[in-house]
Order: sequence, then structure tokens, then C-alpha cells
Amino acid sequence: MPSVDRVESSSESEVLARFTPTLFQRQQSVRQAGFSHLIVGPGDDAAVLDLRGGQTVVTTDTQVENQDFRWRWPSGLTTTGYDIGWKATTQNLADVAAMGAQPVSMVVSISCPKSSPVQFFEDFAQGMVDACAALGAEACTVAGGDLGTSTELSVTVTALGLTPQPVLRSGAHAGDQVAIAGALGTAAAGLALLETEQLPDLEEPALACIAAQQRPQSPLKAGEKARLAGATAMLDVSDGPLKDASRIADASGITIDFETESLRRFITPLENTASLLSNSPEHLALEWVLTGGENHGLLATFPADAELPTEFTRIGTCREKLDSAVTVDGVSVESKGWDHFGQSMVEDLAD
Amino acid sequence: MPSVDRVESSSESEVLARFTPTLFQRQQSVRQAGFSHLIVGPGDDAAVLDLRGGQTVVTTDTQVENQDFRWRWPSGLTTTGYDIGWKATTQNLADVAAMGAQPVSMVVSISCPKSSPVQFFEDFAQGMVDACAALGAEACTVAGGDLGTSTELSVTVTALGLTPQPVLRSGAHAGDQVAIAGALGTAAAGLALLETEQLPDLEEPALACIAAQQRPQSPLKAGEKARLAGATAMLDVSDGPLKDASRIADASGITIDFETESLRRFITPLENTASLLSNSPEHLALEWVLTGGENHGLLATFPADAELPTEFTRIGTCREKLDSAVTVDGVSVESKGWDHFGQSMVEDLAD
Repeated sequence: MPSVDRVESSSESEVLARFTPTLFQRQQSVRQAGFSHLIVGPGDDAAVLDLRGGQTVVTTDTQVENQDFRWRWPSGLTTTGYDIGWKATTQNLADVAAMGAQPVSMVVSISCPKSSPVQFFEDFAQGMVDACAALGAEACTVAGGDLGTSTELSVTVTALGLTPQPVLRSGAHAGDQVAIAGALGTAAAGLALLETEQLPDLEEPALACIAAQQRPQSPLKAGEKARLAGATAMLDVSDGPLKDASRIADASGITIDFETESLRRFITPLENTASLLSNSPEHLALEWVLTGGENHGLLATFPADAELPTEFTRIGTCREKLDSAVTVDGVSVESKGWDHFGQSMVEDLAD
Repeated sequence: MPSVDRVESSSESEVLARFTPTLFQRQQSVRQAGFSHLIVGPGDDAAVLDLRGGQTVVTTDTQVENQDFRWRWPSGLTTTGYDIGWKATTQNLADVAAMGAQPVSMVVSISCPKSSPVQFFEDFAQGMVDACAALGAEACTVAGGDLGTSTELSVTVTALGLTPQPVLRSGAHAGDQVAIAGALGTAAAGLALLETEQLPDLEEPALACIAAQQRPQSPLKAGEKARLAGATAMLDVSDGPLKDASRIADASGITIDFETESLRRFITPLENTASLLSNSPEHLALEWVLTGGENHGLLATFPADAELPTEFTRIGTCREKLDSAVTVDGVSVESKGWDHFGQSMVEDLAD
């Protein structure tokens, strides 16, 4: 068996040497493309950015092993450093896009066990950089970071973006259209597949659901387009549309009514995958679509007469405030979704 | 025994309710003092800041239990959430100051075990806010964050600052003065005391050394003053002056020569504390001063004819580049200091 370089037998500078070249290459190509936000990259006390082009949005998000992912899932499938770098990027840039802003840069802090292969850092950096390119974050660089040791892997990314005017959660009005850009339910389906022991041989679209969980694609460009189209409120769907819609509803003092009929285009394609795991696939597919997060789609509200950007599909309407923040076809629902403290993705491991 | 509210029996919003009021109060007082960088605080996908006043510096730093601190030290002394919040703030704002910038805002991500007392979040927020006030970071707010679960506590803070022109590590020239603002060696002495079993009853200045380790004071204002006084290079001394000086030397292509005589004012006051732990206290005190980090003093170089700001003490000179990046009284030394991967603060626990 070939020996694996591990963090414990490497110096900090050796580990950095696996990490920073990928980032420098990205900086170079971003500069060549005409973006000049990053003035000083990794290597000093702090990175230096030029953020004078608008208001700055800033968001931060952490992934911890066995909480946010498993290295090896019950299905036998695994998570790579590349996946973690990709997902950390998507999670954060989706928050930037959900403010109607363009992503400009990220910093990353990684704490890892000493037994970690040094290769992890190369894979992680490549995952970040490839996600930026794939998601259309042309201006976005990785400006710097921090490395340290821990007994469990923990990765925190902080992302910065620029916008002339942020789109908040609090601006929706009764009568506004409710619309979604990006996928719904596929990441939740992917999680269910990853967590399933004795998984059957999978084909598309089940494989695409697993990819949606491990390397989510967020429609970043749709965020800025929504702002330009007059979006009154917007957020990143990380905890499921029901729960996230209730956040817009609560912040705006309205009720959001989802229309099952318009959600059908998300539900139907999942029923085949749901049938691998359940005897009532329609019900499971509906649950994935309404309460599954992590696709990092953008949920937005627009004035009744606004023309929706092509990325958006209308899925509901804002109503005068009722007892329930969210209704489905006019019927009250409890806001179901993700709560870090009330539950955990992998409850058994987390306790 | 009174029951303790724990994270596992609280919802995310209940935990947030312990955390955000302290931050909102800080925002209010910062606004009343006339600073208006923070436009939207916690509660949306991202915070919104106005960073159009200069170039932005951004830095990130993580603390992990048993790696960067122990909840209970061998001495029997303990670490509180307040200490962790304070130290996370100082670590990050010192990096901002070391770029010659003024701190503007921070975001924080906390991952904690489900058994953590909810009180931790209140203490942590208070520690951050009090550190901002104590260090003179008048404009600095906590703009937002992320909470999640983990099996070990991990806290990542990202800080932002503004400057008309950053001071990098690479600008030192042969002939420049080398100077330090802030304390040297006391945080290392504090760590040694905390790690000592059967600690004798302590009095000042030993108690001050423990405070320097747990709630470090960085001379933030000195960073901007150094820039205005023409500092050619600067960094935050987090890994010990020998190692950190070698970083300036390497980046600038020079050698830094420390003068023991001018370090005497840092060494002598530590000898009494060193005598509690060693039979050769002069040697131990010298080691603390030369290789101990975490005081977050600012090490800077200035032109030979520059008048040093009052916070700075001259401790050496920049020379033409020699084989060794750092010398002491003209004698080569290996760059000793902190390496996260080569060693660990609490080696026995970290393996």
C-alpha cells in the first residue's frame, strides 16, 4: 500500500503548499477576466479586498463531519474533500446570491485531525475553485484562511459579495408572487439515498439526487436577476421551502400560500426515486419538495405584475397575514424543516 | 442543584435569543457613537455592511477545545465562554490592526456539543462585545453568524477592517528599525502556569500572565498609528517574535537582528513568575519573550529616521539578508515558534 502523507508528519507550510497554489491559479484567472477585487491574497495577517463597488454582504457557514456529512454513508458511498469544498462554496455563495449580490471572495478556516491525509487540502481547494466556476461566480476568489488541528473535521467558509441594494426577507407584500429558482427536493432525496443501507444499483435521476446533496448547484445568477426584476424579498432555501417561506412571511408580516399544482413539476420527477425507498412514493416526494433543504435554490417574492426572470417558477402567492405563516392550497401547515438544535441530520451519531 | 438549560433541549431560536440581544445592543451603541458601517445585522441570509471607506482587510481564525484551550487546565483553573469570545475577538482584530486597518465588523460561527449549556452563548457574546470595547475597537460590531452542533466546541470568527493603504509583511528594508507594541512573553507564561499541576497560590504579576493568555489585550490603535508613522512592514505576533520576525524577513528579503538589551524590559518582569516553574528563571523568561505567541502584540519595521509611535519600543534592526532570517545580537537562531501541524499546544490531548 502506498504511504499517505498525513497532517501529523507535515509542517504547516507543507500543508499550505497543497492548498494555496490552486487558489493563486484561480486569482490569476479571475484577474485576467477583468475582476480586480482581490488586492492581496493568502500569506499576510489578512487578505485585502476592494469592496468599494457597492454594499457588502457577508455570510458564514460551517460543516462538521458526522453532523453535516458522513465520510462513509450507510449506503457505502463516501464523501471526499472535493465534495466538502464544493458544498461549502455553494452554501455560502447561495446566501450571497439570496441578498441579490454578486459573490466577490471567500475566506476559509479548516480544523482537521492530525491523521488527515494532506491530499484532503488539495481536493478541498479544487472543490471550492471548481464550484465557483460551475456556479458562475466569475469574480469570486479565495482570499485567505486559517488551518489548525482538531479531533473532528470542521470547515468554516465566510463569503463576501457586493450589491447596489440588498434584497432582504422583510419586503414581501400581500398579493406578491412567490417563486423559486433552482431545484427542490433532490438534495433531500439524495440524503435519503446516501443514508439507505443496501441501496439497489442506481441510475439517473437517483444519481443526480446524490450529486445534488454532495455537490449542490445553486442558481447564483438568478439572485441578481431577481433584484433587477424587483424582488421584494428573497432567501436561500437551506432548511426547506416551508420553513424558509415562514421566515419571509414572519419578517414581512404576511402569509405565504404554496400551490401544490405548481409544485408538481418538482414532485413528479422524484416519485421514481421515492419508490426505491417507500411504498407511498407520492407522499415521500411531496415531503422532500416541501421540507427538504440543501438544494440552495432561491425563494423570492415579486410584485404581482412583475415579469419573473427565466430561472424562476411561480409556486405561490403572498396573502394577508393569517394565524399560520405558511399555507398549502390555503390549508395551514406547521413550518417543518431543519433545526440544528431540535434535531440533527444524523441523530444517532451526533448524540 | 439547579437545572441547566442545554442546547439539546433548546430550539435554534431559543439559543439565538441568548446570543443576539448582546450583539444588537452593541450595534446600537456603535451607531450612537456615529459609526454606520453595519446596515443589516443578524437575521437575514447575510449581513450587510458599508465598506466603501477604504480597502477592506479580511481575516479568519478558529479556536477548538483541547487544541487552543482547555475547559479545565491541569492547574485546576478553567476557561469560560466569556474568555473564548474575548480571545476570538482579540486574535482576529489584532490581524486587522496589523494591516494598519481599523476593525469594522466580525461574523462568528459556533459549533458546539448538544450538552453545552445555553448560557455559553450569552457569555461568549458578552466576551466579544467587551473585548471590542476594551481594545478600543469603537466601530466594530458583530454582524452575524452561524450555529451548529459538533462533538467538540469549535469557534470561527472572521473580521473585517478598513484602511486607506494596508501595511504588508514585505516592505521592510535593511536599516529599518524593528519595534514592538504590546506585551511579549506574558501569554506564554500564563499558558505555562495554566498547564502546571499543583500551582502555588498566585499573586500579581503571575495572575496578569494568566489573564494575558485567556483574555489577551492587543494594542489595536498602535496598528493605525504605525501606518501613519510610515511602518514599512507589520504583523501580529501570534506565533512568537522569532518566528513572526522571520516571516517579515523572508517576505522582505532581509534579516532581522534582535537586541537582547532592549528586550530586557520584557524579560526581567517575567523572571519572578519563571522562578515558580524553573531553576533557571532567566532562561525561561527569555524563552517566553522570544518564542511565546498569543499576546497579539504588533511587530513592525520603520525607516531608520522615523519617530516611533509611543506604543512602540525599538527591539532590533533590519540588516542585509544573511543565511539566517533572524539573529539575536548578531548570532543566528533557528526560527522557533508555533506550528499547528508540527506540534500542538496540548500535545497529549491532541493525539
